[in-house]
Amino acid sequence: MEEGGPGHLISLSADPAGAGPPAPIAHGGDLDAARRLFPGAPEPWLDLSTGINPVPYPCPPLEASLFRRLPSGADHAALRAAAAAAYGCAPDAVVPAPGTQILIETIPRLLQPKRVAVVGPTYAEHQAAWIRGGHAVAAVPDLGAAGDAAVIVVVNPNNPDGLVHSVHDLFNAAERLAARGGFLVVDEAFADLEPIRSLAPRLRPGLVVLRSFGKTYGLAGIRLGFALAEAALADRIAAALGPWAVSGPALAIGRAALADAPWRRAAAAARQADAARLDRLIARAGGRVAGGTALFRTADFPNGINLFRRLGEAGIYVRRFESAPDRLRFGLPADKAQWCRLSRILR
Amino acid sequence: MEEGGPGHLISLSADPAGAGPPAPIAHGGDLDAARRLFPGAPEPWLDLSTGINPVPYPCPPLEASLFRRLPSGADHAALRAAAAAAYGCAPDAVVPAPGTQILIETIPRLLQPKRVAVVGPTYAEHQAAWIRGGHAVAAVPDLGAAGDAAVIVVVNPNNPDGLVHSVHDLFNAAERLAARGGFLVVDEAFADLEPIRSLAPRLRPGLVVLRSFGKTYGLAGIRLGFALAEAALADRIAAALGPWAVSGPALAIGRAALADAPWRRAAAAARQADAARLDRLIARAGGRVAGGTALFRTADFPNGINLFRRLGEAGIYVRRFESAPDRLRFGLPADKAQWCRLSRILR
Repeated sequence: MEEGGPGHLISLSADPAGAGPPAPIAHGGDLDAARRLFPGAPEPWLDLSTGINPVPYPCPPLEASLFRRLPSGADHAALRAAAAAAYGCAPDAVVPAPGTQILIETIPRLLQPKRVAVVGPTYAEHQAAWIRGGHAVAAVPDLGAAGDAAVIVVVNPNNPDGLVHSVHDLFNAAERLAARGGFLVVDEAFADLEPIRSLAPRLRPGLVVLRSFGKTYGLAGIRLGFALAEAALADRIAAALGPWAVSGPALAIGRAALADAPWRRAAAAARQADAARLDRLIARAGGRVAGGTALFRTADFPNGINLFRRLGEAGIYVRRFESAPDRLRFGLPADKAQWCRLSRILR
Repeated sequence: MEEGGPGHLISLSADPAGAGPPAPIAHGGDLDAARRLFPGAPEPWLDLSTGINPVPYPCPPLEASLFRRLPSGADHAALRAAAAAAYGCAPDAVVPAPGTQILIETIPRLLQPKRVAVVGPTYAEHQAAWIRGGHAVAAVPDLGAAGDAAVIVVVNPNNPDGLVHSVHDLFNAAERLAARGGFLVVDEAFADLEPIRSLAPRLRPGLVVLRSFGKTYGLAGIRLGFALAEAALADRIAAALGPWAVSGPALAIGRAALADAPWRRAAAAARQADAARLDRLIARAGGRVAGGTALFRTADFPNGINLFRRLGEAGIYVRRFESAPDRLRFGLPADKAQWCRLSRILR
């Protein structure tokens, strides 16, 4: 799962109703949009509109050959082994991709039209991609409401509210779906730094797990993500991407980072502390934290529209939601100066 | 188009007939395979099995933020503008992708099953991808033999024989295909350094042009390639890849390199001179050059199987072809030491 939440960006000015094609889904990280909304804001912007770790993994030195030659089978095998160890599955279950977004786009196109249920509100690209893939898609509030859908999509923990699903329920749903030739997609984009159980060690027919690399490691620009699935399904997904979809630098960085469990443990502790600090700032500003993960917090404010504007005018960009205008999502500041800048508005 | 030629790698040992699934398509650049074939060969290997420019574009310095943040709309727009200027088309016709291979995989999945003709022998992944996409695929010797196919695929100049198609014929074929709701795919992977005419400035409904970045610029590891098509079709292809398929470093490097026309002109002259030098070596070794481009030469030898073995035992890896065992394809040596090493065998 990439950045972005449910719904579309709300324009501060009124849009002509019904004019033109539907607006594209708004995502975090689009500072060009922020600059258009707040042309007088001070630069540089403080971008808190994403859920990307603001303290990135220290990239290892990159040999020139990684840029020059085609990635080899050995490069792929090394990355898959590191990912398998980090996620707790078998190497032949790991499908590396240039970011999870392309997996969200690709998986629907591998299937004949089906009935699909997306549990939400959640990351809007899931529903959009299944519709683009020609499927009949329903948004449902929980697993139990998925009815006879052949495919169910769940984000766990959910974005933007951090809701965590029971692994037991998810596993059972996958079993039922597999029995009717369907499957469960569990997007664990924000699972790495959470104290939750992943389905990755429990792969079985009828289950696809997505894992994001860029958010956890603060390296969203290299484009790396994974589908985890039983080998037969993993092979189908891998074939749709072709043999060289992931860049040489991403393969090398991913291999080093995924093998670094101590860094991941330290990052989890540090970001969880940051999240708690952010919750205190939000409460001070009158917000009620609806949930989140160690990389973002989502809160409802008495006047969220006004707070969004005050933040924007101060050059601080956060996520908002068309369906809930008083709800804002905050990513984590990176350092003391950024915390101070945010603190001056959230008071 | 990525590395690889028509047909599968031939094993030097006999394969058990009919055992197991079909062998994957062999591609250049797989030195692991070379090491398995020639375990006693001296290291490092001289890899001439690809058509990648051995003298890469000098990468500009890469800011850390390119690795950390999601690529922005402005990053994409800048790359598309540079590609449009280099290829002679409109920016909204340019679809950047993480290498051309994923476009070869993706485009067939956007269409309902159709009759497809691949003009060849050519790069084997085209036919394989259309078959994987559920289409009925025929290999045909030329455009005129494509019959009532709704989609025709042509590689221009062709790999491995360098055959150049008439732009007039291709344009007319695209017009005919568009009239019946189909299109022509022209893979111009090796066109950049050739004195040939591209179809990129003549885009129209019913025409998709593929351009490879990594071969021309010697940067195959960053994964960058393009589909060029009229805006409506370009938008469909772009939607299938999602908004962040290309990495931040690839966007920045691609933008700089595509804007550097003087480098491209100098590279064309230098590689054409290298290709002529390689032809002289091939002739000295008794080979007859069947064709090629400025980045590879393909030749038939009186005993190509034996020459492949002698090269391999000396640690030099070239491409061979299942359908033509005495045919070998040579990429270009990078420097004097590599030329000398090749020259010692081709005598």
